[in-house]
Amino acid sequence: MKLTMTRRSVVASGAAGAAWAALGGGAARAASQAVQVEQWGLFETALTAPGAPEPFRTAVTGVFTQGETTVRAPGFYDGGDVYRIRFSPPTPGAWRWRVESDLKALNGQEGRFEAIAPSSGNHGPVAVQDDYHFAYADGAPFRQIGTTSYGWTHQPEARRRQTLETLAASPFNKLRMLVFPNATIATNEALSPYEKTGPGPRDWDFTRFNPAYFQRLDACVAALCDLGIQADVILFHPYDETFGFEEMAAEADDHYVRYVVARLAAYRNVWWSLANEFDLLKTKTDSDFDRLFQLVQSQDPYGRLRSIHNWRRLYDHGKPWVTHASIQNGSAVLDDVRAETYRSVWRKPVIFDEICYEGSLEDRWGDLTGPEMVRGFWHGLIGGTYVGHSECLPRHKGDGFWLGEGGELRGKSAPRLAFLRSIMEAGPTPGVEPIDKWWEQHLGGVAGQYYLRYFGDAAPTEWALDLPRDEITGGERFRVDVIDTWNMTIEALPGEFVMAAKETKYFFHDPARPTVALPGRPWMAVRVTRLA
Amino acid sequence: MKLTMTRRSVVASGAAGAAWAALGGGAARAASQAVQVEQWGLFETALTAPGAPEPFRTAVTGVFTQGETTVRAPGFYDGGDVYRIRFSPPTPGAWRWRVESDLKALNGQEGRFEAIAPSSGNHGPVAVQDDYHFAYADGAPFRQIGTTSYGWTHQPEARRRQTLETLAASPFNKLRMLVFPNATIATNEALSPYEKTGPGPRDWDFTRFNPAYFQRLDACVAALCDLGIQADVILFHPYDETFGFEEMAAEADDHYVRYVVARLAAYRNVWWSLANEFDLLKTKTDSDFDRLFQLVQSQDPYGRLRSIHNWRRLYDHGKPWVTHASIQNGSAVLDDVRAETYRSVWRKPVIFDEICYEGSLEDRWGDLTGPEMVRGFWHGLIGGTYVGHSECLPRHKGDGFWLGEGGELRGKSAPRLAFLRSIMEAGPTPGVEPIDKWWEQHLGGVAGQYYLRYFGDAAPTEWALDLPRDEITGGERFRVDVIDTWNMTIEALPGEFVMAAKETKYFFHDPARPTVALPGRPWMAVRVTRLA
Repeated sequence: MKLTMTRRSVVASGAAGAAWAALGGGAARAASQAVQVEQWGLFETALTAPGAPEPFRTAVTGVFTQGETTVRAPGFYDGGDVYRIRFSPPTPGAWRWRVESDLKALNGQEGRFEAIAPSSGNHGPVAVQDDYHFAYADGAPFRQIGTTSYGWTHQPEARRRQTLETLAASPFNKLRMLVFPNATIATNEALSPYEKTGPGPRDWDFTRFNPAYFQRLDACVAALCDLGIQADVILFHPYDETFGFEEMAAEADDHYVRYVVARLAAYRNVWWSLANEFDLLKTKTDSDFDRLFQLVQSQDPYGRLRSIHNWRRLYDHGKPWVTHASIQNGSAVLDDVRAETYRSVWRKPVIFDEICYEGSLEDRWGDLTGPEMVRGFWHGLIGGTYVGHSECLPRHKGDGFWLGEGGELRGKSAPRLAFLRSIMEAGPTPGVEPIDKWWEQHLGGVAGQYYLRYFGDAAPTEWALDLPRDEITGGERFRVDVIDTWNMTIEALPGEFVMAAKETKYFFHDPARPTVALPGRPWMAVRVTRLA
Repeated sequence: MKLTMTRRSVVASGAAGAAWAALGGGAARAASQAVQVEQWGLFETALTAPGAPEPFRTAVTGVFTQGETTVRAPGFYDGGDVYRIRFSPPTPGAWRWRVESDLKALNGQEGRFEAIAPSSGNHGPVAVQDDYHFAYADGAPFRQIGTTSYGWTHQPEARRRQTLETLAASPFNKLRMLVFPNATIATNEALSPYEKTGPGPRDWDFTRFNPAYFQRLDACVAALCDLGIQADVILFHPYDETFGFEEMAAEADDHYVRYVVARLAAYRNVWWSLANEFDLLKTKTDSDFDRLFQLVQSQDPYGRLRSIHNWRRLYDHGKPWVTHASIQNGSAVLDDVRAETYRSVWRKPVIFDEICYEGSLEDRWGDLTGPEMVRGFWHGLIGGTYVGHSECLPRHKGDGFWLGEGGELRGKSAPRLAFLRSIMEAGPTPGVEPIDKWWEQHLGGVAGQYYLRYFGDAAPTEWALDLPRDEITGGERFRVDVIDTWNMTIEALPGEFVMAAKETKYFFHDPARPTVALPGRPWMAVRVTRLA
């Protein structure tokens, strides 16, 4: 699946004003001028009011109404005399808006716009579907194939553009990225999120954001949206030894969260990740994160997906404000049963956002081979979960790489993940379920209809095609494909397999064809699909 | 470890009046007569009041005070004109008590007693220790080696006595058991929990308990206490096709729970299991169990351990009223990493109370070999969790077996679990932690001090003794034992292993002795213990 990128200029410009256009958006330059905006697109209005003493603390809210429906969208100060309110219409039709503000010049401004049908690439935001999976608002399944580039938005324009070109040609449909700069990675663009108060690296005024920093972020999120890629926006991280953004007081944390949510929530491709490796953030407790989760939930009018990513200790993903589990644990996808475990405990979707990275580092978190990276995705899939990729492949010592800076992909896994994505897209909707779980079947799919079996680094020469009895009564006919997940081939076996009960009560098989021949190579899979 | 049984007569008598004596208890026959009761023992007072119209609904509470401390212990009607209040003193010294009741004859009765030092076998109740483990109130570790006999209390006296004799000679220190009869198992003793209202199997008066049924239960719990065995009392179960106890209305459920808690909470060896295979109880929702959990919590003055056991779907063990996870999942202990997974997600102790059973059944849940049963315990231990045993070994078709009825143990696993218990008791306190988790070390213990490595059905001829760097800096000296977990032998290797950094930054080893020789048999383990 190739995604064409139509608006590189968005990122190059760094201007928020252009960002909404990429999203099927429109703007009302004057309050009375009605425009057309796609459903799930981005409506934006810029309002001017000079001279507020603390503009970042000015309350500005857009109240959007359509019939009985009212949505309150927080606005934000964007520098100069400009305040902006962004809104993503959840339904088509006429919308009216009116500003509530403690600034007299803003309060009571109003207007209207028309939400029109979404264009072909606009499926709406992604939400949880059937407990464990994801789907777009228009019902299309979202088959998560994630990647991570923590600091790509902090890189120079040419590198950002290269990152987007790489993504456009990649299988990835979700990108994890930091808001705050990562001190362990060079921040090559001289923008800071706050106004400085002195020459020291930690001399910040936490009450005054730098709009240019966030305008660049807006543009990056918009560009990802244009590519059909979800932006998994990481609000806090523990890699800040330089700037001190992890040591802000609770009031500053809250102010920051409100500001980012007000700017970004209207982009339909935004997901919120409260933190990366939250348990390394020694300056915050679990109850701080409880509070921040609930703040995001209260400020985001759309209920975008919310998660938090761990190092060694897991946050309680059973808490109601967590929409899905975002997990770092490479060992969890060394088999499909381990992957499944997490799913059952929370009854929520699980994304193994970090399973170590394909790379050449001496660090064990960055030394996976390509096959090992791909294996994790297959195990995750069979276990009914989703997985994330990244790469640590510097060309030479000291060189940058995808995980930190974006740029180009140099590894061997990405093409195989594109192949995997094609398998997923041809498979059941909304996704794969573990079949006869906890009985070592290693089968994912839909009982009675569709089965995937993946053999990892084993190199079997045959597989006994025994189907667990769930949804099978005998007489069902199946076709079988032998899949080479590394060489990216699919061999359809001739004929069909007709199910009959085995002597053991737990299984069915075809007595005339009890086994499937396999080539004795690693990284093989078998797909069993019901015939009509 | 052998446990001698001193009071078989308790169970034989079936009389509640004798039960407390086995617990280091005492009774005040008249309100003014002070007696001595061990700390954590069982104080009981019998109160007489004739003619209450609905005695099972009579409110009776014992208010026990010592200095600033007040404990409200619910009482219960026990047939005839008799009401009882039981209390387990959490601290030594003088206690006063006074009855609150809506029966005039009971209200205001009072007395006192002296809680004296516990005797040698009385370590107090078991509680959670260090997040993942258990300890007695006196600080002694509780190394859980569980078993299950669902219907042992419903069997004839001779069988109950045999069960207790078997347990006394076994390694088991926790027994899972049903309160209500299991209709799929013969209930050979003609006692029912409720008064009958007609000849049909479901003709019950759910407002009138049968005291004799619960007196027998009291005596069984007391006899287990005397043996040092925790009684994991299962309040609801889904195996009742005959009697209809799983279909009671919420009000009857609550009445029943209050009654059982009032009778049993004062026994220091009681644990509450809200249900067995709760997700098969189609007559109750998760919120019903939320309510019942909170009811137990509110009625039990001692905060005894609380859990709930699953079939395919897990209850959210993260909820605050769950003290530990009670899990059915045999596949979870097929490696130690899977076992660990559950522990990390809830940060609570995990007991795999059902991992399939050693047995000869055609059903796959009852066909484990002895080695498979024992393997699950070892994996659970290395993963920082605990495991439960049972047996389905009928002598012939139609014969009963331990899981259902108790009686005798016929399998091969129990002696090996006794051996395992001896290993645990010689190991770290309160228990084994996974070491360098999620990195495939398969090591449990205490970093820097103690390591266990278990090889399962692999039959290695050597093991590279590489210790992860946590708490190791070089120069540490260790002794090594090679353990045959099946043949129950421990071979101490001569000399010592002195740690030095390996070329990889993650491990230390002894360059002069980098490997340990192993015999090429399955079921081996290695123990590495720090020398002073």
